[in-house]
Amino acid sequence: MSKTSIPRGTRDFSPDEMAKRNYIFDTIRTVFKCYGYAPIETPAMENLSTLLGKYGEEGDKLLFKILNSGNPFAEVSAAELENSNAVTFKVSEKGLRYDLTVPFARYVVQHQNDINFPFRRYQIQPVWRADRPQKGRYREFYQCDADVVGSASLLNEVELVQMVDDVFTRFGISVTIKINNRKVLSGIADVMGASDKLIDITVAIDKIDKIGQESVLEELRAKGVAEEAVQKLLPILLLNGTTDEKLDKLSDILSSSETGMMGISELRTIFGHLKFFSLPQKVEVDLSLARGLNYYTGAIFEVKANDVAIGSICGGGRYDDLTGIFGLKNVSGVGISFGADRIFDVLTALDKFPTAATETTKVLFLNFGSQEIVTALSCLKNVRAAGISAEIYPDAVKIKKQMEYANKRNIPYIAIIGEEEEKNSVISLKSMKSGNQQVVSLEALIQLLV
Amino acid sequence: MSKTSIPRGTRDFSPDEMAKRNYIFDTIRTVFKCYGYAPIETPAMENLSTLLGKYGEEGDKLLFKILNSGNPFAEVSAAELENSNAVTFKVSEKGLRYDLTVPFARYVVQHQNDINFPFRRYQIQPVWRADRPQKGRYREFYQCDADVVGSASLLNEVELVQMVDDVFTRFGISVTIKINNRKVLSGIADVMGASDKLIDITVAIDKIDKIGQESVLEELRAKGVAEEAVQKLLPILLLNGTTDEKLDKLSDILSSSETGMMGISELRTIFGHLKFFSLPQKVEVDLSLARGLNYYTGAIFEVKANDVAIGSICGGGRYDDLTGIFGLKNVSGVGISFGADRIFDVLTALDKFPTAATETTKVLFLNFGSQEIVTALSCLKNVRAAGISAEIYPDAVKIKKQMEYANKRNIPYIAIIGEEEEKNSVISLKSMKSGNQQVVSLEALIQLLV
Repeated sequence: MSKTSIPRGTRDFSPDEMAKRNYIFDTIRTVFKCYGYAPIETPAMENLSTLLGKYGEEGDKLLFKILNSGNPFAEVSAAELENSNAVTFKVSEKGLRYDLTVPFARYVVQHQNDINFPFRRYQIQPVWRADRPQKGRYREFYQCDADVVGSASLLNEVELVQMVDDVFTRFGISVTIKINNRKVLSGIADVMGASDKLIDITVAIDKIDKIGQESVLEELRAKGVAEEAVQKLLPILLLNGTTDEKLDKLSDILSSSETGMMGISELRTIFGHLKFFSLPQKVEVDLSLARGLNYYTGAIFEVKANDVAIGSICGGGRYDDLTGIFGLKNVSGVGISFGADRIFDVLTALDKFPTAATETTKVLFLNFGSQEIVTALSCLKNVRAAGISAEIYPDAVKIKKQMEYANKRNIPYIAIIGEEEEKNSVISLKSMKSGNQQVVSLEALIQLLV
Repeated sequence: MSKTSIPRGTRDFSPDEMAKRNYIFDTIRTVFKCYGYAPIETPAMENLSTLLGKYGEEGDKLLFKILNSGNPFAEVSAAELENSNAVTFKVSEKGLRYDLTVPFARYVVQHQNDINFPFRRYQIQPVWRADRPQKGRYREFYQCDADVVGSASLLNEVELVQMVDDVFTRFGISVTIKINNRKVLSGIADVMGASDKLIDITVAIDKIDKIGQESVLEELRAKGVAEEAVQKLLPILLLNGTTDEKLDKLSDILSSSETGMMGISELRTIFGHLKFFSLPQKVEVDLSLARGLNYYTGAIFEVKANDVAIGSICGGGRYDDLTGIFGLKNVSGVGISFGADRIFDVLTALDKFPTAATETTKVLFLNFGSQEIVTALSCLKNVRAAGISAEIYPDAVKIKKQMEYANKRNIPYIAIIGEEEEKNSVISLKSMKSGNQQVVSLEALIQLLV
């Protein structure tokens, strides 16, 4: 079977899986469009110069690199073979995109003169990572991103939370939308007297759900954060109460940090608007939310399913200088990304896929051979013209085999035009579900199935 | 600007281009579904062992190859550097798919126990070729394929032609659908007494539109086809009249070739059915149609636009042994592939894109700052809940700037909630096209825009 395997960590999608996945994409796309976001697509390959250094050292290793065409090894010397990196970048100038955010930043800079800012764009495309494949982690997977750039207004954050709420409400998935702010995290580092350790602190806090509070403090000590500072973090991690209560207490603790107070003010504005909408889903402030990526500068979002134990199913935040890496300064942006694979798993676990999502063909015309086939084809044409998905079994094999095919394909109706039906210009329509059969005119059949 | 370039032969797609492309994909997908074809997707990367040798020697060179992860050069010796191919296959095990047909054949063999045959599948995904980029030829482009495997019935050919007809009729593009049969080509080689030169003959005939009839004959002589045989080809290339007349004359010429007569019989069956449907588009037999690919064994299709000078915009045919290369014998298949890029160019040339295809947001709410924004956001929520794409300008900048944005984005309506409107619980709705402004209730606004 090795002749027909696919690369590790990649997947084929069958019609049934496609139908479910399209239901997910269509739902997300509908919400994106409803909020004025417009689609773009970027190439699967980017120049390596665009991708390298954007995802940390580990990320660089996880990029899939593409061999140059022609004879890429002609210029490689034996001595160079010692240095794998040098050879790699000599024989490879392109890589597969690792996420949609960096290509989007590149897109904005490249097309800045054609874009109408504020630019709300969405993008639903696969990305590739040479990660070690494991359950639920793939080397090829889709990301569904919506970002707005060129506007610093907090209304954007408010609308993105509304969109997240809208998407999961349409899916029938109960979630908690967690919000934090990187400025608050900076403020915490400030009052800890460890501003220089901000990255270490946020990386450690990000792990609290996985490794627990004591290990977070331990990790900070190991990173050289003074014990006094570590102790100052503890009450912040333990804050409780309503969002307003938490923000009030935090105001007291962070009062000496200008950045921290700005973060609190932003959170208050966002929650103030959200309260007004009384969204169906739970939205809360979560100060332990840090996210690994270091380009966020303001709001941070993360979404967890309430009834399925799985990691974050959606996340995002504001980044004040994403396009700066490509030479365009002062373009603030904020965005969210939906994890289609995990949402697929959650919908499966909760059995929330609508049955209509998996139905393809509505009616199968049986094939009795050359005599009546012309009538069947003529009816078929009319049925399809009415927008009904219909097919005819192409070969005049045993009826039992044709019925089995309809059954396995989940086709709900069978249309029969035999000698008798032909003579009377009617069709026998059989429901595969109930087994009931009725004799109808072509017009009645279309009325029934449309 | 080199910091923000993309690899040669690849493209970014802007919202406007995406809307047009999605119109093309959606139209094709609608027809595929209507005829009972179900979607699948395969990974962008396939094992090189799956791809190599399937597209000829030239095709192997045009495969984009992906470097193995880790340190792929650790095992490469200095001596091996002399042999580019040996190094390539040592450091690279995966390649980007070159078309959708070979991955589909691999899919059918790999999942044969889960598939309900006859299997009608469609697939709309990008493919990659390291071709020299030029006008209209890209290194990344989408293919839109529909194939049915596991049925030898000619009804499949008939339905595929109907689908092609349906797609181009929906686009409003006038086309000619050309049909030939590889068995007829075999028959021609037989009666020429040059059966061993079949490939050379079909490759040469395939070029007749590009290089002319005399050059075709010249090419055959150069390939070592005897002059007597070359002369026998000429009357066949010059056959004219209606389809029935052509097939009648051809019957006389090919009567000594069993294969050739089988091809004629297949063509008669297909045209017999098609005549019955009286399709809107022109369908004709074209004996000069050969297509380069050598895996076709029966019907061959090609579609040309009648009013735009551009190459083939759709093509396909029957292949009796596609899955044989992966060890599964006797699975006959037939399929078609639409060229989305060329269809895009034809629709552009004929100005046939519907305007609705490029419209995204229906109404923009102006932003007057904090006072009235809460009312605007509340209205916005209701407008979106009614399924209307709507947005608010996120920043309270000058109204002129907000209007310019709406204009450039092609947003047809502006909703204004200022102090006066706020007080009277109404909205001023301005049409960007006519310039007319009316004062309406929220309910009336929704009625107008839905």
